[in-house]
Amino acid sequence: MAKRKSKQDAPASPKAPVKRAPRQLDEKDEKTLSLIVSTAERVRAGIDKRALPELRFPTRSLGNVKYDAKVGYFELGKGRKARALTVNTVKSFAQTLRLMSISKEMVENDDFATKREAYYVSKNWGEAKFNEQTESDTVMDDIEALASLDGLSREQLRFYPEEHGGSVAGNLIVLDRDSETGAPLRIDCTGFGSGSYSIPHAVEHLGFETKAKFILAIETGGMFQRLNNHKYWKSADCILVETGGVPTRATRRFIRRLADDRKIPVYAFVDCDPYGIANIYRTLKVGSGNAAHINRFFCVPQAQYLGVTPQDIIDFKLQDATHPLQAVDVKRAKDALKNDPFFQAHKPWKKAIDQMLSMGVRAEQQALAKWGLNFVIEEYLPRKLADRKAFLP
Amino acid sequence: MAKRKSKQDAPASPKAPVKRAPRQLDEKDEKTLSLIVSTAERVRAGIDKRALPELRFPTRSLGNVKYDAKVGYFELGKGRKARALTVNTVKSFAQTLRLMSISKEMVENDDFATKREAYYVSKNWGEAKFNEQTESDTVMDDIEALASLDGLSREQLRFYPEEHGGSVAGNLIVLDRDSETGAPLRIDCTGFGSGSYSIPHAVEHLGFETKAKFILAIETGGMFQRLNNHKYWKSADCILVETGGVPTRATRRFIRRLADDRKIPVYAFVDCDPYGIANIYRTLKVGSGNAAHINRFFCVPQAQYLGVTPQDIIDFKLQDATHPLQAVDVKRAKDALKNDPFFQAHKPWKKAIDQMLSMGVRAEQQALAKWGLNFVIEEYLPRKLADRKAFLP
Repeated sequence: MAKRKSKQDAPASPKAPVKRAPRQLDEKDEKTLSLIVSTAERVRAGIDKRALPELRFPTRSLGNVKYDAKVGYFELGKGRKARALTVNTVKSFAQTLRLMSISKEMVENDDFATKREAYYVSKNWGEAKFNEQTESDTVMDDIEALASLDGLSREQLRFYPEEHGGSVAGNLIVLDRDSETGAPLRIDCTGFGSGSYSIPHAVEHLGFETKAKFILAIETGGMFQRLNNHKYWKSADCILVETGGVPTRATRRFIRRLADDRKIPVYAFVDCDPYGIANIYRTLKVGSGNAAHINRFFCVPQAQYLGVTPQDIIDFKLQDATHPLQAVDVKRAKDALKNDPFFQAHKPWKKAIDQMLSMGVRAEQQALAKWGLNFVIEEYLPRKLADRKAFLP
Repeated sequence: MAKRKSKQDAPASPKAPVKRAPRQLDEKDEKTLSLIVSTAERVRAGIDKRALPELRFPTRSLGNVKYDAKVGYFELGKGRKARALTVNTVKSFAQTLRLMSISKEMVENDDFATKREAYYVSKNWGEAKFNEQTESDTVMDDIEALASLDGLSREQLRFYPEEHGGSVAGNLIVLDRDSETGAPLRIDCTGFGSGSYSIPHAVEHLGFETKAKFILAIETGGMFQRLNNHKYWKSADCILVETGGVPTRATRRFIRRLADDRKIPVYAFVDCDPYGIANIYRTLKVGSGNAAHINRFFCVPQAQYLGVTPQDIIDFKLQDATHPLQAVDVKRAKDALKNDPFFQAHKPWKKAIDQMLSMGVRAEQQALAKWGLNFVIEEYLPRKLADRKAFLP
């Protein structure tokens, strides 16, 4: 008893931080290190020859993007911009190399930095420090675009976004690793009761075991909670993923890796409105225009649109649970039809968006509650899943 | 093989929804039902006597709030407003009774509705339907205030918010229950690897097993991920909770129930700025003024402020990693000093906020990365935890 009491009163400080298991560098880690080292060597070789060193990055803009429905996502074009060392670029040149050097250390130590932390780390760089995070983000985006040419994502460089990941429940075992002992961890996503598994910021190291028939990506936390509390994942033999609006990078990458690895289809269940279709679903499936260098990692080309569709509003008699489209909705829908290569490439989508515009209304997934709280489980999802060929592309 | 193939192709619909285990109503459920039934009986008795029935709700406004540091949170005053049945109130009167009736059904069936779903359910009520969710939310707030007088929260009435819960990692076993079989579930929060446990929307039914020394409530996902990836919860023997900005109701209630149940202290680790102090921490600890009827459930009066403090900026030499206070920051800080009964009741807080105002800067928790990514684990937290008496109240 006495011993326990003294332990309670003792400060936590005497305990040493947990030692982390030495980690075998995997293939991608080796690739990351080799990219960083070869870039640095090129710069050094230029200096040794008394030439001004230069770094070349892919141009990140809509003008340098292409979309091929067969590839399935917005790709980076061939445009490049060079950053040569001059009086004007000396600071950003140094910052680029510094950030790449941190990245090397983090890969070697199995550590990471949020984009915000990376900005703060620079405060110890003397004159090379960043004054605003927008500066460090821009340099990081360039490095990321460079690495993407080698099939490496920013997470592989160990820079993570600040954003929160999505939640997962259902017939899935996630394979992770104890950071201290290196022992394998099996995380059974059927075992969390009313709670769920929260996706970490980086998912590259995760493995998966599942016999589930599909992944259901769900827009709202409320719908996710309903399907989880009623163990819908058991009756439908699936995996539920809550995206919480537009899915974060980690959530998209998690779904993509899981779907690729286990070869299972992905169905999106979102609100029937231009935001749900042109932002949430489009970003999930093909990525976004101004981040084309990362789409190859973060989009889920195999995703299909289960609903809610404009036709569902009619088929499930939801008219009096709809809301009129606002000006911003109409603008977003028209933009999608006019400017978005994804919707232009798929006729069924043109038809669906035209239908929504002519009906002049939008419907949320929770509107199905009009027919009873569990209508979605007992009627809507089974009827939709019985005709998967009708899903929008 | 053939059998498996046909299973793959079959629609999910033939499987019946999972049957849920009959659930023993607990004491709070009985209380909820008895509140609803007695309210309905009073209305009915009025009608039977040919009197106009009346419903009385606590007034929800800052004018009907009191703060006693010993109680530890903003309490509801004695103000009441009556809603008598008249031509003008007939609709909201009916809506109130309808919502209470849904609540009764949900308690009996162990189900729930998000606030959004409750709004949509009304679409089947004919003329009593809600036109906007703001209408259903207002009626729900009244019912919630009424129930709070009996020690019942809105979650107990089975109406859940849409918001996402926080994440948990560390020395904690959460006790839940399988909704289908009723079997107990033990969720070990040390076993999620780089991921974590996502708090469900309702936490009232959860139990806890832990020998952890404290709960660390962390503002940012990035810091949470760092402490989790380095298993800080093991070296410091604690439980990590990510609040993701201002903690949601479920996150606050989770921390509160855990801290009450296991009698462990709660330390808040947030940004040193008026938002971190006057919004995130203040809401966590004492609740908010315009929701005084729920603070008794959702605040965590035992919370203490570990940091980042204005003095930390000096002690840990973070000056060049700070940002100037903006006009909105200064206004928020001055408001806190002038109008907030919590800060007025605690001199150390007055001093700290004055210090921040005179320094004219704010500092984020991630600013500690200036001294190295893991300075926070190796130096900052151990030094702070060695002097817990110095924590701000």
